[in-house]
Amino acid sequence: MIWGCFSWSSLGSIVSASSSRFVGNLLVIPMDGSHWVGIKAIAQEMGRRGHRVTVVMPEVTSRMGPGKYYDTVTFPVPYDKAFVESVMATHKEIMKKSSQPFMEKIKSRITQIQSIVGMLHSTAESLLFNDRFPLTLQDFDAVLTDPMVPTGSLIARKLGLPTVNLLRGIPCSLDMKSAGCPSPPSYVPRFFSGYTDKMDFKQRVINTLVAFLEPLLCRVIYWHFDQIAYQFLGEKVGVAEVLSDSDIWLMRFDFTLEFPRPLMPNMVLVGGINCNVRNPLPEDLEPWVSGQHGFVVFTFGSMVSELPRETAAVFLEAFRQIPQKVIWRYTGPLPDDIPENVKMMKWVPQNDLLAHPGARAFITHAGSHGIFEGLCHAVPMLMLPLNGDQPDNARRFASRGTGVVLDIFSITTEILLQGLNEVINNTRYRENLQRLSALHTDRPIDPLELSVYWTEFVMRHKGAKHLKAAVHDLNLIQYFCLDVIALLVTVVLVFLILTVKCFKMCFRKLGKKRKQD
Amino acid sequence: MIWGCFSWSSLGSIVSASSSRFVGNLLVIPMDGSHWVGIKAIAQEMGRRGHRVTVVMPEVTSRMGPGKYYDTVTFPVPYDKAFVESVMATHKEIMKKSSQPFMEKIKSRITQIQSIVGMLHSTAESLLFNDRFPLTLQDFDAVLTDPMVPTGSLIARKLGLPTVNLLRGIPCSLDMKSAGCPSPPSYVPRFFSGYTDKMDFKQRVINTLVAFLEPLLCRVIYWHFDQIAYQFLGEKVGVAEVLSDSDIWLMRFDFTLEFPRPLMPNMVLVGGINCNVRNPLPEDLEPWVSGQHGFVVFTFGSMVSELPRETAAVFLEAFRQIPQKVIWRYTGPLPDDIPENVKMMKWVPQNDLLAHPGARAFITHAGSHGIFEGLCHAVPMLMLPLNGDQPDNARRFASRGTGVVLDIFSITTEILLQGLNEVINNTRYRENLQRLSALHTDRPIDPLELSVYWTEFVMRHKGAKHLKAAVHDLNLIQYFCLDVIALLVTVVLVFLILTVKCFKMCFRKLGKKRKQD
Repeated sequence: MIWGCFSWSSLGSIVSASSSRFVGNLLVIPMDGSHWVGIKAIAQEMGRRGHRVTVVMPEVTSRMGPGKYYDTVTFPVPYDKAFVESVMATHKEIMKKSSQPFMEKIKSRITQIQSIVGMLHSTAESLLFNDRFPLTLQDFDAVLTDPMVPTGSLIARKLGLPTVNLLRGIPCSLDMKSAGCPSPPSYVPRFFSGYTDKMDFKQRVINTLVAFLEPLLCRVIYWHFDQIAYQFLGEKVGVAEVLSDSDIWLMRFDFTLEFPRPLMPNMVLVGGINCNVRNPLPEDLEPWVSGQHGFVVFTFGSMVSELPRETAAVFLEAFRQIPQKVIWRYTGPLPDDIPENVKMMKWVPQNDLLAHPGARAFITHAGSHGIFEGLCHAVPMLMLPLNGDQPDNARRFASRGTGVVLDIFSITTEILLQGLNEVINNTRYRENLQRLSALHTDRPIDPLELSVYWTEFVMRHKGAKHLKAAVHDLNLIQYFCLDVIALLVTVVLVFLILTVKCFKMCFRKLGKKRKQD
Repeated sequence: MIWGCFSWSSLGSIVSASSSRFVGNLLVIPMDGSHWVGIKAIAQEMGRRGHRVTVVMPEVTSRMGPGKYYDTVTFPVPYDKAFVESVMATHKEIMKKSSQPFMEKIKSRITQIQSIVGMLHSTAESLLFNDRFPLTLQDFDAVLTDPMVPTGSLIARKLGLPTVNLLRGIPCSLDMKSAGCPSPPSYVPRFFSGYTDKMDFKQRVINTLVAFLEPLLCRVIYWHFDQIAYQFLGEKVGVAEVLSDSDIWLMRFDFTLEFPRPLMPNMVLVGGINCNVRNPLPEDLEPWVSGQHGFVVFTFGSMVSELPRETAAVFLEAFRQIPQKVIWRYTGPLPDDIPENVKMMKWVPQNDLLAHPGARAFITHAGSHGIFEGLCHAVPMLMLPLNGDQPDNARRFASRGTGVVLDIFSITTEILLQGLNEVINNTRYRENLQRLSALHTDRPIDPLELSVYWTEFVMRHKGAKHLKAAVHDLNLIQYFCLDVIALLVTVVLVFLILTVKCFKMCFRKLGKKRKQD
């Protein structure tokens, strides 16, 4: 499965750094889509500080591309732009089928997941089994990657390089497992459960069952990558073991979103990494948004940039009835009846718009980047989650009174209007957000700065072994001390049995003696 | 048990802060002895930044005193300076008795612990049950304290103030328990065990047993404080519950000393907090230490500033035989035969001496402040631990090849000389230390800066509730999901039994049918 060779494009204007500072070579192996946003920010900043940063990306991508401060290496893939777009369009298809029977919806969802996963596997294989790969990627100090797709982690292991991970989390908790981080199911709610950290008995039972099933789920999700790992590395290791090599885990959350939970020493919280990556608004947008009633920002992330016609109509009808202006990221063909207060654009500077004092509400799919930007700038949110971590993100934020969650698949103009009026006119959402935003933004170091710091740390010290717990040397029985507990229980039981037998014997002898007397 | 009233002394020259910065009132309730060192550094720095800092201390102390940037409030205690000194002198007595039989040594140790604990209780009661207390300590934004003696935590609960703790750790893991932090006994070695994070089966059994016994140990250690808490607060809470109120735990360690372990979101590592609190050497010391062979720093901390005559002679004899100069902190009567290369002083600027390029070795009791200073400046250590966390500190550092551990109770000139020559002349100790020091000092923020940051954070936001895990609402059965596991096991068992019964019935019926046929 070798499709071709690498092509290098040195677009980076490498900044010369002072001799006293450490300057190194960073290999970046990102994931496409919204996952690229955070990785790009770190790659750019690392390049800006004088490091030589090389980003490896497929020739065909949905969002990735060159940047001012990094080089790119592209590798050929067996699909074209049209295929990528067709995969993206599956979201729209699913929304269209929202009125279909349950089994039909499930079928569409499975087809969608299969097409996305198929593309991810194909991309990974195109890089890993490219014949020029080992020759080209050399002399790096560390790998920065998103372990959700473990291509970067596999390459790091093959090249013997330390790894820095940037991620929001892996649904089957593979990240926590690989980092050796305890996640007590009694107060750490699992992904997709919708629970908070305060669970009743029934919820704890379900949460514990999910926790028990997580390893199985991981096996299912990473089944193909486990095979790829064996093929690529030539050693019998699974993805979990490969990820446990990781030196630093940059986690894209914090405890204004997540419920407080244990962490490991090599986990660094960088939720809101993009919050301060800001630019002034484009000249044509500034006067448009500066109205008396403010404006609403409406984006559904990189995966959904277009809605089925009937869903779009629901939104347009609602927007017609509010005094605020609306800026909507929309790549599909524009409807005929766009109200005057609505601007549909192929791309919007989301973070810059949210940072504008006129922003009144943020209609979002509750992707982790979006909600952190909304939180950072304290803009009340109307959350319409689609998939992945979005329903959980939405519920967690809503539980803190920062916005309203609606179901995109059964949305009507009335419901939408009610939600919009609620988040725009009820001041409690903004007040809660301001309090939460004050906590979120009150941190000793900006998350991007912190991410760069730990990436440089790993490069300087060739890893961060002193932060890795000795948990990886233990199997599950040893980790939970089940062998020790078994021994202790046995000792106690043997002691009890002997004591009882001893007493019985004594009583019997006493009884005999009395009889003899 | 009310001895008198408070006396205020406003020595602090409060620095005026810019109006944009948050300036608040901090109440500091420290512990005496070496525990004072870190708290003082934070109190000073907070005052220097413009906060009004009030330190509450007993009228009679061993180390505490006024400072440039904080006010002090003193309260009367029912003991005098001579009593404090007699308690300190117990260490010397125990060393003298090192040749005595085991039971005698144990007796002396118990007497020593009783006298120290008695003084701590008496100090706490003098503050808590002082009749003017509730009137005087008001209008504060937060309490900074050392929870080892929970006086500050009790006052914070009474006044409804958020708490910031600074500590190295509590031997029975009460800190971890109160913070809700998991400490799996499979790889988190317990205090005093001397184990590393890689334990064999036998060690895991003992470590697990210690973990099981820890709650009992805590009850014994904090028995009297549990009574005080009830008396003082008028509510049925123990020290563990009071400490679980704490907002931020500033932990005086890092993972160059400790073995990597889980942490909670409200735990902040500030090991080496005093490393950068530096001054130039006094004028008379600078020329003295600047010799060709360098010098050795010898201090045994605040608790032991004097040695039994015969032990002191062992050290002097060894020092006579090395080319290095020796600076020795010693408060007792000076011996007659001090060698020319030895300078005995009542007080030494330990951190400034260790920071001097001429420092060749550090003879220390392995107190946490000392070893972090040695680590910070990469000075090889000869560690002679006495008690508390010192044996563990020493073993952990020695396991990283940073120095040699010797037994102070059986020390001879030969052993000492051998140890000194080893750490001074074998370059591997300094090399290991330089590597470890590079890791220790490579951090995004200086530990003192970080401590101040989180103290200010708690003052600004009136706590840090969003960082506290929901573990405190759970009892042990719920926390470990034992009820859930019991239910699941029951369900599985019932299912198995029913299946077996079902099969049996089927077979029986089949058998009957066959017979009938």
